[in-house]
Amino acid sequence: MSDLQQTLTRLREALGDAQVLTGDAISQRHYSDWTRHAPTCPAALLLPKDTEQVSVALRICNAAGQPVVPQGGMTGLAGGAVPRASDIALSLDRLRGIEEIDAAAATVTVRAGTTLQEIQQAVADAGYLFPLDLGARGSCQIGGNIATNAGGNAVIRYGMTRDLVLGLEVVLADGRVLNLMNKMIKNNCGYDLKQCFIGSEGTLGVITRAVLKMAPQPGESTTLLCALPDYASAVALLRRLQRNAGTPQAYELMWQDFFRMGVSWLETPVAPMPDHHPLYVLLESSATSEVLEQTLEAAIEAGEVVDAILATSQTQARSLWKIREATGEFPVRLAPLNFDISLPIGQIGDFADLCRQRLDERWPGNHNVYFGHIGDSNLHLTVDCNSLPQPAPVYEIEELVYSAVGELGGAVSAEHGIGLLKREFLHHSVSEEALEAMAGLKRSFDPKGILNPGKIFG
Amino acid sequence: MSDLQQTLTRLREALGDAQVLTGDAISQRHYSDWTRHAPTCPAALLLPKDTEQVSVALRICNAAGQPVVPQGGMTGLAGGAVPRASDIALSLDRLRGIEEIDAAAATVTVRAGTTLQEIQQAVADAGYLFPLDLGARGSCQIGGNIATNAGGNAVIRYGMTRDLVLGLEVVLADGRVLNLMNKMIKNNCGYDLKQCFIGSEGTLGVITRAVLKMAPQPGESTTLLCALPDYASAVALLRRLQRNAGTPQAYELMWQDFFRMGVSWLETPVAPMPDHHPLYVLLESSATSEVLEQTLEAAIEAGEVVDAILATSQTQARSLWKIREATGEFPVRLAPLNFDISLPIGQIGDFADLCRQRLDERWPGNHNVYFGHIGDSNLHLTVDCNSLPQPAPVYEIEELVYSAVGELGGAVSAEHGIGLLKREFLHHSVSEEALEAMAGLKRSFDPKGILNPGKIFG
Ligand SMILES: Cc1cc2nc3c(=O)[nH]c(=O)nc-3n(C[C@H](O)[C@H](O)[C@H](O)COP(=O)(O)OP(=O)(O)OC[C@H]3O[C@@H](n4cnc5c(N)ncnc54)[C@H](O)[C@@H]3O)c2cc1C
Ligand SMILES: Cc1cc2nc3c(=O)[nH]c(=O)nc-3n(C[C@H](O)[C@H](O)[C@H](O)COP(=O)(O)OP(=O)(O)OC[C@H]3O[C@@H](n4cnc5c(N)ncnc54)[C@H](O)[C@@H]3O)c2cc1C
Repeated sequence: MSDLQQTLTRLREALGDAQVLTGDAISQRHYSDWTRHAPTCPAALLLPKDTEQVSVALRICNAAGQPVVPQGGMTGLAGGAVPRASDIALSLDRLRGIEEIDAAAATVTVRAGTTLQEIQQAVADAGYLFPLDLGARGSCQIGGNIATNAGGNAVIRYGMTRDLVLGLEVVLADGRVLNLMNKMIKNNCGYDLKQCFIGSEGTLGVITRAVLKMAPQPGESTTLLCALPDYASAVALLRRLQRNAGTPQAYELMWQDFFRMGVSWLETPVAPMPDHHPLYVLLESSATSEVLEQTLEAAIEAGEVVDAILATSQTQARSLWKIREATGEFPVRLAPLNFDISLPIGQIGDFADLCRQRLDERWPGNHNVYFGHIGDSNLHLTVDCNSLPQPAPVYEIEELVYSAVGELGGAVSAEHGIGLLKREFLHHSVSEEALEAMAGLKRSFDPKGILNPGKIFG
Repeated sequence: MSDLQQTLTRLREALGDAQVLTGDAISQRHYSDWTRHAPTCPAALLLPKDTEQVSVALRICNAAGQPVVPQGGMTGLAGGAVPRASDIALSLDRLRGIEEIDAAAATVTVRAGTTLQEIQQAVADAGYLFPLDLGARGSCQIGGNIATNAGGNAVIRYGMTRDLVLGLEVVLADGRVLNLMNKMIKNNCGYDLKQCFIGSEGTLGVITRAVLKMAPQPGESTTLLCALPDYASAVALLRRLQRNAGTPQAYELMWQDFFRMGVSWLETPVAPMPDHHPLYVLLESSATSEVLEQTLEAAIEAGEVVDAILATSQTQARSLWKIREATGEFPVRLAPLNFDISLPIGQIGDFADLCRQRLDERWPGNHNVYFGHIGDSNLHLTVDCNSLPQPAPVYEIEELVYSAVGELGGAVSAEHGIGLLKREFLHHSVSEEALEAMAGLKRSFDPKGILNPGKIFG
């Protein structure tokens, strides 16, 4: 019997046959994540039923030096959950369900395999808000959200997933269960170990349970579209709003070309305001309309805003959002090469100019558009590969963009993580010494290197 | 020449004589922290002038296996900065100053030895708020705040120090400089290493610089004193406020005996409302008075509030705060044994009852009072040692309180850390496996164990 066969035999004995699948019994869903990068059938798929089974499975794999790839909802955008043929995939699908809602503590305790949407719903039913929100809500799992430190739609107001986690249960590579469950806001009892696992993309431990913060349900909000004369005004308007009307719930900046493209894709392609302005921002605020109007007037007076529409109905608000949601059409209308990057907020405007200039010099006539949640330092840039020589020089474009990110002190991954797809660009944002220290952390928690090998570091 | 003498010679050569003090040249300020626990003159005091000197000093000490105790403002309340006679103290006093305020990014970049107050002032001058605030603001250093993950007055609204740190520069035990400086809210480039050093009490690295978040300056606030029928009402009122009037800036709960004691210590000892209610809460809200009054009316209707005073002047607000500030008189009027603990918010009331019952059973007639920032799960409990048999059975009381904390899933340190003084109680809040994992982290960053040995773990 090969080593792998022996390991599988032990796993079957320990977990039961129904928890250890191989070959055709493994659904293709477990071959790759949302990127469809390198789809591969793993050597086996484990479907443990509880923390104890996760622990036993890892103990067996660790003893055998058998690589294990933790898998959540498979909606990741960095290839972090993609297995190699020799890996065993460990899915959290069966660790599902809400364990407790503690209304007094404003916490919800969940199993790692619970989908984000299920949590949002249960928390809403209890009269609270679970503020993490992203497009993959129906499929992604909270374990995956935590393992990638997901961002999403509400970061400007509520922070990243890290900011919503109070406690974790984690199984280490050797099967030891770390109980870091905690409901307290204040807890300075030694090192805050849970922080190590948040955003570690399955390379340091398998997350099995979590205690999450619930927020009060927000009131109504108002939608506003503003035209701005320049990037500095976009920052000034954001800070003015925060000072006078509270942090907005959304602050979506669109450069002129993105705005025009979004308008041109509308069913009725008519711009809600003149389209010759350099920048547009779509924002949501929960301030009273009185406060919002006062703030807007002051911004107009200061020259930060040159045109504005305040949505007076849900329908109007929806139609304004349609322009921003052009991104949903990218896969259909473009051959999009999307970048998820971040920069110091003051540098985002310069970065966009620099990046466009370099792209245009290198590939005259190429089509690239810019938009972003600048309140949380996040810029999105999409290059349409249809506008480039074929086959599109993807690696060369990535290297151009990521090295510019590095020059301006930005991050090559804002929210999706490094996984397989950004490993070779990580050095643009992370120093040699920091990479070494990360490797040290990895060795400390996973000395045999069985957890998700090849991810992040390569 | 002894090993120590050799090390000192090397340090003098590398840093210059003025940066290496011994014996009487060392001010007593460096002997102990605010607790005055075990004051001891260290073998030497290093006063490096910059990161490079911190790095060189640690390289030399690490090569010699020489223990080093990082020292900030020496205001700690856990003995974390207290040296042993054989330790070399490394003070951050000379790494002082604001390096940059980036108004667009809303960040401030500082050297570790800068006092909290200096940062608050510089940020206020730039039109922002640096929300970390605590009584020691004039002496404590931001490096110490970060190393202890300090809490303080504004946690309910702005979080712990951890929530305000975007980037760090850290010198590792062997002298390597980790540049983790970062201005982005979103940055998922591998492990978030800075998290390891926040709250690590000088045992994993020496913090030399930091990038901190600035917040918008808040508007005016209103002060309100409410009497409550029971603990559940204190939680219900807090959640009602958060839903309808925003998170309050302060939410200070006082049990009846604390309230009565505070009133009796006033210059004119007259209670602003009847003093027979079980609980009182003093709160600050920045909601409009209209919203606040509506919310209060609804709370009265729901029976959560049985009496209330809304301060109509600054003077009245100050006089209400005077009751809560009785804690400032503790060292003069009592022989206080203070506890800094946290519990799940829903359990704080039960804990207070349980703890009082056990203390009263064991030491009939002892005097113990309860008050807390329950919005951030923090309870303070003070036992007056004057009310106990002498010498006061301090250890026995601590064991009684901390084991009750453990039983209810609380933390033996809410904000001050473990240092020297809580090491033997840590196990009430942290599992064996977690302690082992912390030790692993320690070995990973400081394999020779030279950084602040004996702290946290013992
Ligand atoms: C339509 C769409 C919209 C999206 N929008 C956003 C967005 O706005 N913001 C954002 O940040 N991301 C976004 N994403 C990316 C993705 O949804 C998130 O990264 C999500 O957090 C991944 O969760 P998952 O359960 O699908 O993880 P998976 O893809 O299954 O795994 C992701 C990584 O986490 C590890 N992992 C998963 N579960 C565990 C566990 N229990 N323990 C340890 N490691 C584990 C895996 O090994 C892998 O490295 C989007 C994706 C899609 C398809
Ligand atoms: C009047 C008063 C009120 C207080 N109120 C509060 C409060 O409300 N909330 C609260 O949390 N605390 C409070 N404290 C405690 C104390 O002020 C905080 O813990 C503060 O953060 C300590 O800062 P410091 O610079 O004085 O650190 P020190 O006492 O010098 O050191 C504390 C710990 O940090 C380490 N350290 C210091 N600087 C560095 C560095 N640069 N790199 C690595 N390690 C370092 C030390 O080794 C030690 O372990 C209060 C103290 C006083 C005296």
